[in-house]
Amino acid sequence: MHIGLIGLGRMGGNMRDRLRNAGHGVTGYDQNQEISDVPGIADLVAALPEQQRIVWVMVPAGEITDTVVAQVAEHMRAGDVIIDGGNSKFSDDTRRAAELGERGIGYVDAGVSGGIWGRENGYGLMVGGPDETIATLMPIFEALRPEGLAAEGFVHAGPVGAGHYAKMVHNGIEYGVMQAYAEGYEILAARDDLIDDVGAIFTAWQRGTVVRSWLLELLVKALNEDPDLDDIRGFVADSGEGRWTVQEAVERAVPAPVISAALFARFDSRQEDSPAMKAVAALRQQFGGHATKAAADG
Amino acid sequence: MHIGLIGLGRMGGNMRDRLRNAGHGVTGYDQNQEISDVPGIADLVAALPEQQRIVWVMVPAGEITDTVVAQVAEHMRAGDVIIDGGNSKFSDDTRRAAELGERGIGYVDAGVSGGIWGRENGYGLMVGGPDETIATLMPIFEALRPEGLAAEGFVHAGPVGAGHYAKMVHNGIEYGVMQAYAEGYEILAARDDLIDDVGAIFTAWQRGTVVRSWLLELLVKALNEDPDLDDIRGFVADSGEGRWTVQEAVERAVPAPVISAALFARFDSRQEDSPAMKAVAALRQQFGGHATKAAADG
Amino acid sequence: MHIGLIGLGRMGGNMRDRLRNAGHGVTGYDQNQEISDVPGIADLVAALPEQQRIVWVMVPAGEITDTVVAQVAEHMRAGDVIIDGGNSKFSDDTRRAAELGERGIGYVDAGVSGGIWGRENGYGLMVGGPDETIATLMPIFEALRPEGLAAEGFVHAGPVGAGHYAKMVHNGIEYGVMQAYAEGYEILAARDDLIDDVGAIFTAWQRGTVVRSWLLELLVKALNEDPDLDDIRGFVADSGEGRWTVQEAVERAVPAPVISAALFARFDSRQEDSPAMKAVAALRQQFGGHATKAAADG
Amino acid sequence: MHIGLIGLGRMGGNMRDRLRNAGHGVTGYDQNQEISDVPGIADLVAALPEQQRIVWVMVPAGEITDTVVAQVAEHMRAGDVIIDGGNSKFSDDTRRAAELGERGIGYVDAGVSGGIWGRENGYGLMVGGPDETIATLMPIFEALRPEGLAAEGFVHAGPVGAGHYAKMVHNGIEYGVMQAYAEGYEILAARDDLIDDVGAIFTAWQRGTVVRSWLLELLVKALNEDPDLDDIRGFVADSGEGRWTVQEAVERAVPAPVISAALFARFDSRQEDSPAMKAVAALRQQFGGHATKAAADG
Repeated sequence: MHIGLIGLGRMGGNMRDRLRNAGHGVTGYDQNQEISDVPGIADLVAALPEQQRIVWVMVPAGEITDTVVAQVAEHMRAGDVIIDGGNSKFSDDTRRAAELGERGIGYVDAGVSGGIWGRENGYGLMVGGPDETIATLMPIFEALRPEGLAAEGFVHAGPVGAGHYAKMVHNGIEYGVMQAYAEGYEILAARDDLIDDVGAIFTAWQRGTVVRSWLLELLVKALNEDPDLDDIRGFVADSGEGRWTVQEAVERAVPAPVISAALFARFDSRQEDSPAMKAVAALRQQFGGHATKAAADG
Repeated sequence: MHIGLIGLGRMGGNMRDRLRNAGHGVTGYDQNQEISDVPGIADLVAALPEQQRIVWVMVPAGEITDTVVAQVAEHMRAGDVIIDGGNSKFSDDTRRAAELGERGIGYVDAGVSGGIWGRENGYGLMVGGPDETIATLMPIFEALRPEGLAAEGFVHAGPVGAGHYAKMVHNGIEYGVMQAYAEGYEILAARDDLIDDVGAIFTAWQRGTVVRSWLLELLVKALNEDPDLDDIRGFVADSGEGRWTVQEAVERAVPAPVISAALFARFDSRQEDSPAMKAVAALRQQFGGHATKAAADG
Repeated sequence: MHIGLIGLGRMGGNMRDRLRNAGHGVTGYDQNQEISDVPGIADLVAALPEQQRIVWVMVPAGEITDTVVAQVAEHMRAGDVIIDGGNSKFSDDTRRAAELGERGIGYVDAGVSGGIWGRENGYGLMVGGPDETIATLMPIFEALRPEGLAAEGFVHAGPVGAGHYAKMVHNGIEYGVMQAYAEGYEILAARDDLIDDVGAIFTAWQRGTVVRSWLLELLVKALNEDPDLDDIRGFVADSGEGRWTVQEAVERAVPAPVISAALFARFDSRQEDSPAMKAVAALRQQFGGHATKAAADG
Repeated sequence: MHIGLIGLGRMGGNMRDRLRNAGHGVTGYDQNQEISDVPGIADLVAALPEQQRIVWVMVPAGEITDTVVAQVAEHMRAGDVIIDGGNSKFSDDTRRAAELGERGIGYVDAGVSGGIWGRENGYGLMVGGPDETIATLMPIFEALRPEGLAAEGFVHAGPVGAGHYAKMVHNGIEYGVMQAYAEGYEILAARDDLIDDVGAIFTAWQRGTVVRSWLLELLVKALNEDPDLDDIRGFVADSGEGRWTVQEAVERAVPAPVISAALFARFDSRQEDSPAMKAVAALRQQFGGHATKAAADG
């Protein structure tokens, strides 16, 4: 097949390589002209096969995705298909599919996991959309997904939105799993009187244990490179899916204490000082005359 | 009555005043000779009525309390009584009562709440020990407790240890309640586009609302003095009881998500950088090539 | 003043009484004709003073409020005012105010706290809207709020939405505070070998302690009526504000571990069986051959 | 080598097989005579090589381990070694090592992970003890650990206690990771309007995704066998290590919100009714006249 791919960053650039290595044609567009195959979006659409133009959008979630999808759609006609492979919120998919559907343009949402390793290992894919559209796109998905059983690296999760919903939950779980390892790391590191080498513990968990996982292997790599994590700050961004997972859990009355705790730990990690803890400190000072740290001390 | 009181700090000093104002005799001892009534513990015990010497120990929990109790006991004989009014762990009481009991010395544990306001308002008291010993001490408890119905400011909670157990849970609850207000404060403060004056909101909650409380009133005072809490850092100590509450909850298989979250928030507040969040940041860097903050940036 | 009041349930009915006791005219409407002053909404509006019709809507949040507001507005003209005193989401206020504003109808959102005790004690009020509209309504707010300093029971929190935002946070805090007491209750009750009477402990916390509050007093009442809470199930509804508080905290990157834990505990309390814990049990069975409880055992 | 092995249950029985398959001699003892190689502990020790008797104890943590270790020690002399491979608390190891050390008997603590799969895959091992004792035991550890790099399935974690400490943290992490998947499961299952087949989602996460792990694979197996987990109840035991992890975190002032949330979820899962939620329900009834469920309704 020959498709268009918009957004050639860390993810999109690697996906272009993987697709081409699998024998597909890819015309890529990026704002950064140095890595772009065409000067603009109109050129990209024009470069695609006449009978059906397929464009995979791989840009940051939010307004940028909306803008790019709209720009691509301008140059499309009924029967063409847009795939949003970014980390969009699943509810945005429903809206976009309806808007494009009025003009006969197909829409598929694809959750893509695997990070920078996907170029080599393949990408875990969760997609949402109508059966017939998904069927059309299968060669692309086949090329992107990891080797091995198809069902172990690709799922048609349901109608439009289901792909991003599954990816959202995937990332929510990811937050929780990472935080579990991280808390364990800190509890081990708190006992340097007893534990000789924290990295050696994680290393030894890679075979045979209940907690072995790919994330564990990555933590081992990280600890090998920087045994006490001296070169890194405990400052962690969050990219939307964790928040949506918690908000959706709340919406559906699903208790999600672990995923929310992991999310809040990230929020915490980014605060210079915590307004809430200022309030607690102020309260203690009021009732107990407890000493507080003046802001100036910090 | 005439009792001895050891430890004349923020709490003990005020208690001496309140007891004297109620007509009791108090001989106080403190390491700080400027505020001490006697030069040493031996002198303190010697100054008390022959027939029964009663000494209230009001020093920080832990080794200091153990040391002081042992020093007092050296000068005592069967029939005398020691009251530990500090924030000791309830399991220490059982041990101490057994040791002193072998020599016929009575032991009572007293949880004391009220902070610096207790001198004026009286102290909420929770005590543990044998009925007859408690009965002997009632004039002291009556003088310390707040005015009004006795049962609303004093409780004989059970055998030795029960007083500190009740106080431990009291403080665990206190952690949770403070954190609830604190989170609410931060959520309000996050919307200065909508909420004109966060302090005014808390002020208005003092009458008629479901969340009115003494802690709320203290927060109002704090916000009056420093509306944006600019002069205070979100750095909060914890003093033992919160930890013991969580550990006891875990021991008894009681879910305590709120009290533990409040405790963990305090731990967090004191960390320059979080080892756990370093691990999370390291993981994100490994799988996603996500930028991290170098420690040097901080 | 003479206003209309729609919704004469537990809250609205008591508010009608309190307003009338304060000398205001109130024409009330309720679907339940037995307690309604007029047969319909049209009649209610018609019964109000010509120069400016003011209608306070006190019905459950959500569609019902939208429907009632729309019905009232049908009979109104420029200069009239609708107050939504229910527990609406603050973002609904902005929308409604805009819609009504196109026709010149004023809109104010009012958060009302105090439960069934408000009739006697007055209601804590947090309102949002334009200064001049609020000024017009002050006699009504004055009658509803508790006695004492105005600023301690009433706040003009900000523009439209601010009243419900403040009330939302109030209820979020309420969830956290209640859960803190509840966890403390369970930890005390877990030690009937040590604590003679849990109710007596809470009773004794009413004076002098740091955790004294109105909610504590209510818990004492409840424990007096039913010392072991034998007659009540641990099944707790949630009414929207707790969810919105957590969702808003997540939206604003504010850590809210305590309020969310309190919310999740309510979700938990309503589940016959937990899908998540089924998954955990299934996992344990897979790796450890741990016995699980068959669904049929339950 | 030829060692003794006490406790031939799910874990011990499989370990005997694995050791024998590797060419080691194993004399096993179990209370259940049908699977025991010898009638009693004295016989077991007598059956071992004269020059150094090595006994691996593989019985449930707590009193049973203490009793068995004492019984074995009775028949030992200086130079012999006892290995505790159960899930003992690390602080018990220190005590036991000191007691045995007085008589010259060596002691090693071994954390063993892998569940029923260990017979085939090998066991992840974390051991604590003196270098020379560990060196002696290496042939045994080599036989038990999984194939592949030694450092990826075995670690000498530190002095006595370090093995069980590492295993404790391993299990704490395990609780958190399992709960993260479980919450994700419930959030997916809550949307059967969108997600066609929850099991298919987990299946597709096995390759390429960030959350791939052995536990994920086990969850896929479980969902294949029972797609809606209809045959299992959400009732989950906990076996000590999770509790100790949280208690140790609290002791060391390490925030552990995720691991504690996972532990509390297990506590919750075992409660017929929650005392805490009864208290919350009682409070709501008091202030709001909210309907509660009578215990009799349940």
